[in-house]
Amino acid sequence: MTETTGYSRTGLVLVKNPHLDLMEEDVLYHLDLGTKTHNLPAMFGDIKFVCVGGSPNRMRAFAQFMRRELGLAGPAEDAADICAGSDRYAMYRAGPVLSVSHGMGIPSISIMLHELIKLLHHAKCRDVTIIRIGTSGGLGIEAGSVVITDTAVDSSFRPRFEQVVLDDVVVRSTELDKDLAEELLACSRDIPDVPTLIGRTMCTYDFYEGQGRLDGALCSFSSEKKLEYLRRAYEAGVRNIEMESTAFAALCGLCGLKAAVVCVALLDRLQGDQIRASHEVLWEYQQRPQRLIAAFIRKRLGLVRTD
Amino acid sequence: MTETTGYSRTGLVLVKNPHLDLMEEDVLYHLDLGTKTHNLPAMFGDIKFVCVGGSPNRMRAFAQFMRRELGLAGPAEDAADICAGSDRYAMYRAGPVLSVSHGMGIPSISIMLHELIKLLHHAKCRDVTIIRIGTSGGLGIEAGSVVITDTAVDSSFRPRFEQVVLDDVVVRSTELDKDLAEELLACSRDIPDVPTLIGRTMCTYDFYEGQGRLDGALCSFSSEKKLEYLRRAYEAGVRNIEMESTAFAALCGLCGLKAAVVCVALLDRLQGDQIRASHEVLWEYQQRPQRLIAAFIRKRLGLVRTD
Repeated sequence: MTETTGYSRTGLVLVKNPHLDLMEEDVLYHLDLGTKTHNLPAMFGDIKFVCVGGSPNRMRAFAQFMRRELGLAGPAEDAADICAGSDRYAMYRAGPVLSVSHGMGIPSISIMLHELIKLLHHAKCRDVTIIRIGTSGGLGIEAGSVVITDTAVDSSFRPRFEQVVLDDVVVRSTELDKDLAEELLACSRDIPDVPTLIGRTMCTYDFYEGQGRLDGALCSFSSEKKLEYLRRAYEAGVRNIEMESTAFAALCGLCGLKAAVVCVALLDRLQGDQIRASHEVLWEYQQRPQRLIAAFIRKRLGLVRTD
Repeated sequence: MTETTGYSRTGLVLVKNPHLDLMEEDVLYHLDLGTKTHNLPAMFGDIKFVCVGGSPNRMRAFAQFMRRELGLAGPAEDAADICAGSDRYAMYRAGPVLSVSHGMGIPSISIMLHELIKLLHHAKCRDVTIIRIGTSGGLGIEAGSVVITDTAVDSSFRPRFEQVVLDDVVVRSTELDKDLAEELLACSRDIPDVPTLIGRTMCTYDFYEGQGRLDGALCSFSSEKKLEYLRRAYEAGVRNIEMESTAFAALCGLCGLKAAVVCVALLDRLQGDQIRASHEVLWEYQQRPQRLIAAFIRKRLGLVRTD
């Protein structure tokens, strides 16, 4: 069974679950929000951009950065973690931008996305663009490069996500919005000194053995086998490797959200496995996707830089 | 290819990676620790128990609780997050006990375990017992019950973990230490009012569709299909469902760590999907595995309760 992507004409989020309408209350457990305890339309109805990333500190920093970029003095509550009652995820607002952490790996982002998508549905948000801004290992590209994902692929380089539903496997499309990717690439031209490209992104379930690293607690393959695998990935168009993009593309696509994945490469995996750059260098790298997304959001909102 | 479990006679952790010996430095990136930047034997050489769990706040609370239970006034640094330089995981000490968070899902716990196992190896720790203390959905058991895992099984109820290595699939055993499970069950008899049992634990890649929940953003099955699946799981011996146990059992088993999984059930999935109990009730539930593990560690250390 293959499921395909569909966008909504109304601009509303498409939850595809007939059971939801029958529920008196919806507790978004891992976000510590709910339809009876919170006025979700009032809190979130005007959200137009959702940015998600693995690390809670990085997503807090992104919200602070966006408030400055949008010229928002910002009510004090914007700086507070909206999900403070849960330490599973962190969520911050900057005007029409929501910044949410998702932890590491497909299961972790998947829990967050189910609850976030229901949140956008309950809040009656319209025309929401969702972007994952993350870190990744590069493939044949310079450390610090920013990759805008064309299509997310699995560890066999196939553009598909296998979701277990009960004990069946459902295959889902992992295509992302091509126009959005091109729009982001166009924005990158205004950001000097940051090499930015469009490429395929490989998504794995594991950071060590699953990505061909020689430095995990277990490793049963040679350096040659590793490089042969990574070169095959490169030839299949893969330019970076991370751990969330296939599930993100599949879920957002099915629910009618225009989605993009923008990740910086912390190293070139053809050169090594360990992330050895200094905290300062890594911090600057991690700001690169944030700067690109800020430029994109400013442009979409019609804000012209005056400084 | 099937890999089996093996315990070390020396009591040392078995890293199975010939490349590690050739590395000048090992940066444990997601823990913000390393062999050149930290004296790992001095910091961790005396660790005998490692307890891991999803939530950073819960693992900090567990370390505080263990310090009280072990009668440790505790140097101030015990209270500090050892991995404060990274917000991927949190790590605390209480005497010979290390308390580490692992986030949600197999990929997230797997990254942490690779780095933790290398840490124990570099620190030359001996005879370490590792226990996951978590939360779960129960199956045909009362909310608040504690399940000590016999064997971790996948979403088809098979006692196996499929690990992608490069683009091959390797099948690993998910058996846990039977003697340790019995020892924990014996300790539970001293804890009144907490129903505790040994059972199989099902581990899934997803909290919503993968666990048969009707309340995700997507749901394509009926309530009847869901219950039919959960009943089949129950008949296969499954008493609770979570998202990390198969990878935990497989990795710890291969590296010679005696391992157990002890999770409290936050609800009975045969009765519903949403976690609706109050914060107070859920907090008390989450303390139950902690109380059991504290009793076990005190017993192992020969400490008799005097209060």
